[in-house]
Amino acid sequence: MNTQKLVAEIRRKKSFLCVGLDVDIDKIPKHLLEEDDPIFAFNKAIIDATQEYAVSFKPNIAFYEAYGLEGWKSLEKTIAYINEKYPEIFTIADAKRGDIGNTSTRYAEAFLRNLNFDSITVAPYMGKDSIEPFLAFTDKHTILLAYTSNKGSDDFQNLEVEGMPLHLKVIETSKSWKNSENLMYVVGATKADSLRAIREQVPNSFLLVPGVGAQGGSLKEVCENALTDEVGLLINSSRGIIYASQGTDFAEAAKTEAKKLQQQMKGFL
Amino acid sequence: MNTQKLVAEIRRKKSFLCVGLDVDIDKIPKHLLEEDDPIFAFNKAIIDATQEYAVSFKPNIAFYEAYGLEGWKSLEKTIAYINEKYPEIFTIADAKRGDIGNTSTRYAEAFLRNLNFDSITVAPYMGKDSIEPFLAFTDKHTILLAYTSNKGSDDFQNLEVEGMPLHLKVIETSKSWKNSENLMYVVGATKADSLRAIREQVPNSFLLVPGVGAQGGSLKEVCENALTDEVGLLINSSRGIIYASQGTDFAEAAKTEAKKLQQQMKGFL
Repeated sequence: MNTQKLVAEIRRKKSFLCVGLDVDIDKIPKHLLEEDDPIFAFNKAIIDATQEYAVSFKPNIAFYEAYGLEGWKSLEKTIAYINEKYPEIFTIADAKRGDIGNTSTRYAEAFLRNLNFDSITVAPYMGKDSIEPFLAFTDKHTILLAYTSNKGSDDFQNLEVEGMPLHLKVIETSKSWKNSENLMYVVGATKADSLRAIREQVPNSFLLVPGVGAQGGSLKEVCENALTDEVGLLINSSRGIIYASQGTDFAEAAKTEAKKLQQQMKGFL
Repeated sequence: MNTQKLVAEIRRKKSFLCVGLDVDIDKIPKHLLEEDDPIFAFNKAIIDATQEYAVSFKPNIAFYEAYGLEGWKSLEKTIAYINEKYPEIFTIADAKRGDIGNTSTRYAEAFLRNLNFDSITVAPYMGKDSIEPFLAFTDKHTILLAYTSNKGSDDFQNLEVEGMPLHLKVIETSKSWKNSENLMYVVGATKADSLRAIREQVPNSFLLVPGVGAQGGSLKEVCENALTDEVGLLINSSRGIIYASQGTDFAEAAKTEAKKLQQQMKGFL
């Protein structure tokens, strides 16, 4: 999916919400455990209930790999379901991959070609030749970690290099990579103070912003510092939506939470 | 497996060779394609042929994920086979993972608990709370990317921060993390000039060193700069061994290449 279609969908739904599918079998409603594939059953219900208010879904790959073969099957079914039933939804493989060139190519094939995600998150530490194999899929997006929402992000991402914090250096350097126009960046909502400088570096790029809600980030601050004419933001919420209720009303409760966020977002568009 | 056992095995075999299992179905001998699981059949033959001269095997996870469910099955069978038949071998999941805490925990469970690898490679960009969930598996090792062998490594890993290159800062900081005594570090053989400073930072830690052979690194230089009384090195070779021949003699050819490297290593011990 190209950026224009994503922006059109954001305007149609008046939402730039991404729902994170970090599915933990210990946290899903007990009645789903009777299903053949409880994780897929859960995802399907969450997707159907929230798609009206969301423009993106983001399965967190770790949660599927933790269940081995069964988890991988659930992941395959989930992405196939979204692609078939809701092709207008922007899908993100939250995988944070990155390796030497021939290996990154394999990860890109796994997620962008075989599973057919619209995008994948990647880690910058190994540099240009670890990221360009993802960017080689020019009909897809590559979402580079810049300044993450977790506490440990300040161990390295904010250290000063060449007169600027490392995360800005990462963004600056990434702009010289081949097909860099298809880059997006991960910036935590907890880093609102840094968002303005990041936005100056990449005035037109989409930012994927986790950390609103449970982690304490403010939607208002994020929008004030980084919203653009073409929106340029995808705000992720995972646990706050998908585990809003652990009863049989879980999908309805997720819908209510997604709608709440969408209503706030509408005010900023 | 603890470090003492690994060192004992190195002394017994007079080898610190790690064989990388980066298995590409287009590169394995054609006659194996008739097998039910060609990748596992290939790995099994390579493992049996080279284990006499190697102390470690390192499946590169991307190559398995690229084949989806079938690839994951081959990976499960490969690690189960090594663990059952050659329990003295040190296994490495070359996965280069790293994410916020609850997500890193899931990756750690997937590779260190469920698949029962002895170790996993991880990326440092997200900092302390992205790595400590792996280190929480105190009977395992966590192998942190420090200074990688690829060209793009100099995009960020060698930038100066606080008076030292970023990769040394990463190593220095990592030493303060909980259970850091179970850390090992990835340092490319192509970075021999930097090995001495790295060794000063971590005089006792094992270094996993890719890049000897095809990528141009020198075994001699690596040993001169980083070999310790307790060895402290695992040298990886992947393509140079596993694709030594694409005929029916592939396993024998792999054995010959592994033995060649082992003979060189013996001279340094």
